[in-house]
Amino acid sequence: MIQTPYLLFLGDAPDQLSAKVAQGIKDWRPDNAVGQFRMDGCAADVGIKDMTLEEGLAAGAKTLVIGVANRGGYISQEWKSVLIQALEMGYDLASGLHNLLGEEGDLVAASQVNGRTLHDVRVPNVEYPIANGKKRTGKRVLAVGTDCSVGKMYTALALDEAMQKKGMKSTFRATGQTGILITGSGVPLDAVIADFMAGAVEYLTPDNDADHWDIIEGQGSLMHVSYSGVTLALVHGGQPDALILCHEPTRPHMRGLPDYKVPTMQQIMDLALPLAKVGNPDCKVVGISVNTQHFSEEEAVAYLAKVEAEMGLPAVDPFRHGAERLADALAAL
Amino acid sequence: MIQTPYLLFLGDAPDQLSAKVAQGIKDWRPDNAVGQFRMDGCAADVGIKDMTLEEGLAAGAKTLVIGVANRGGYISQEWKSVLIQALEMGYDLASGLHNLLGEEGDLVAASQVNGRTLHDVRVPNVEYPIANGKKRTGKRVLAVGTDCSVGKMYTALALDEAMQKKGMKSTFRATGQTGILITGSGVPLDAVIADFMAGAVEYLTPDNDADHWDIIEGQGSLMHVSYSGVTLALVHGGQPDALILCHEPTRPHMRGLPDYKVPTMQQIMDLALPLAKVGNPDCKVVGISVNTQHFSEEEAVAYLAKVEAEMGLPAVDPFRHGAERLADALAAL
Repeated sequence: MIQTPYLLFLGDAPDQLSAKVAQGIKDWRPDNAVGQFRMDGCAADVGIKDMTLEEGLAAGAKTLVIGVANRGGYISQEWKSVLIQALEMGYDLASGLHNLLGEEGDLVAASQVNGRTLHDVRVPNVEYPIANGKKRTGKRVLAVGTDCSVGKMYTALALDEAMQKKGMKSTFRATGQTGILITGSGVPLDAVIADFMAGAVEYLTPDNDADHWDIIEGQGSLMHVSYSGVTLALVHGGQPDALILCHEPTRPHMRGLPDYKVPTMQQIMDLALPLAKVGNPDCKVVGISVNTQHFSEEEAVAYLAKVEAEMGLPAVDPFRHGAERLADALAAL
Repeated sequence: MIQTPYLLFLGDAPDQLSAKVAQGIKDWRPDNAVGQFRMDGCAADVGIKDMTLEEGLAAGAKTLVIGVANRGGYISQEWKSVLIQALEMGYDLASGLHNLLGEEGDLVAASQVNGRTLHDVRVPNVEYPIANGKKRTGKRVLAVGTDCSVGKMYTALALDEAMQKKGMKSTFRATGQTGILITGSGVPLDAVIADFMAGAVEYLTPDNDADHWDIIEGQGSLMHVSYSGVTLALVHGGQPDALILCHEPTRPHMRGLPDYKVPTMQQIMDLALPLAKVGNPDCKVVGISVNTQHFSEEEAVAYLAKVEAEMGLPAVDPFRHGAERLADALAAL
């Protein structure tokens, strides 16, 4: 569990896109961020107050979160001088970078001398159990995609927001590093040892109130040959009561796999539902989330209407139109 | 790659069953073992020549393989005195124990001083790539089971033997520690990081002659909620041309999961085939391997005939009757 609130470290971000983690925190958990810290030459701005490390502390920040991708495959000396100063002032650090904070001797030393914690959310810090498959109380919904990076995390976060607005009990359960940094906890599923994947998902979504929904962030796709095993561990470890299909309709091929066509939503539904019923015989597909970013508003509305008619399920783009109808579908279960 | 041939260390095995790894090596790769090394009180005997460490060396042994389970969750001092002596004499050591040789300071020191290698086959020693899904040359067959521990490794090894006898080109590809020790190489798939599982299977089964078959050892089951993700990585990383269904008909429930019924062979086929066709559209189920150890010969023959009629596929128990008909089915593809 990462201590909140955060000060968001944007460093010397070369562009807005590289600050995607900071932007995600600001968009989805604005109360988790007291401000942003930008170095000279920073080209990103997530639209919250600029603060020095001192101002962040005064505003209550507990953790400096690296909200930006690093360059060149290493952590620069310019960054490190800020990070070490932050540790000396009493901040914990949190990062989802491939370069681990815990493998940088000077950061480790500074954290130890100052009694602070380095959170590398890309690697697990828990010994997860082997899944036992026992039925858990509470309800769970899982986002399953036709491909990687089609908007499963966004869909889950938007659904959580919509459910909260309706007064439903829900918790977003992060399974990737961006989601973990946004919410402060979760399981970095792609870094878990194979035997413990499903057990990690069970650990992430324990017994809960009968009317509480865990909204589980999806990963990969059952038809993406590089990562499908991770996806199936989510389907079986998550015991979902409900699935939401996520799709991006303009992909020329599966992400990273030029020889593989993106499957149809029907294909994924036909695969995912029988697999999900192994862990939860009552599982249903309740809705469809389409990422229409490459469509005009008119195209998007027409496409969503067509999908809705063909599949007989509510079809929305949560980015354009919100996730209320998906929340309604869960409430109606 | 573990250097062969081996001397098989049986230690102070309490019974025959605990020497299952040594027995597997003797049964399937007798040329890999020059003899067995037994300590006082050893109650196991795999039926090959007893040798001292000196005799093993003289017979050409390169590696002392721990062919027996240890007791009490640690490696005893009695074992260690033998293991250290072996390292000093020039043996490498290989082990599939949960207690890693590489975490025992005295063994590590002795291996370093003597320039020997400690092989812990339970943990990967390769940085596997992320799967790229590219079509590979050569053919592959994968054993898929209705449950864990139904005889997938045995089926694959028996099939390899039958294919060799027919003069077909084949290689058994181990994916678990016992199989790795038997053949000297492989991938300990259950210990691989999630993101790299399918890539590890691609690595294990590279391009080969057009008429060569990789016989891939299966793991888990697509319907075993604890391990299904590992199984799917085999289905997608392996790009199998052929699947062999493995079943044990007397299980009261899935192994380790009292609340889960064992699926039918038809259910597994209906799940596995569409998933396998993602990676290889030509994949076919070519045969069924039934573990009839709890049946009399008469019951076994009747059961196999019934399965064969119902499924329209050759159904054999390779332990009772050999795997020739499965090899024939592959030859006919």
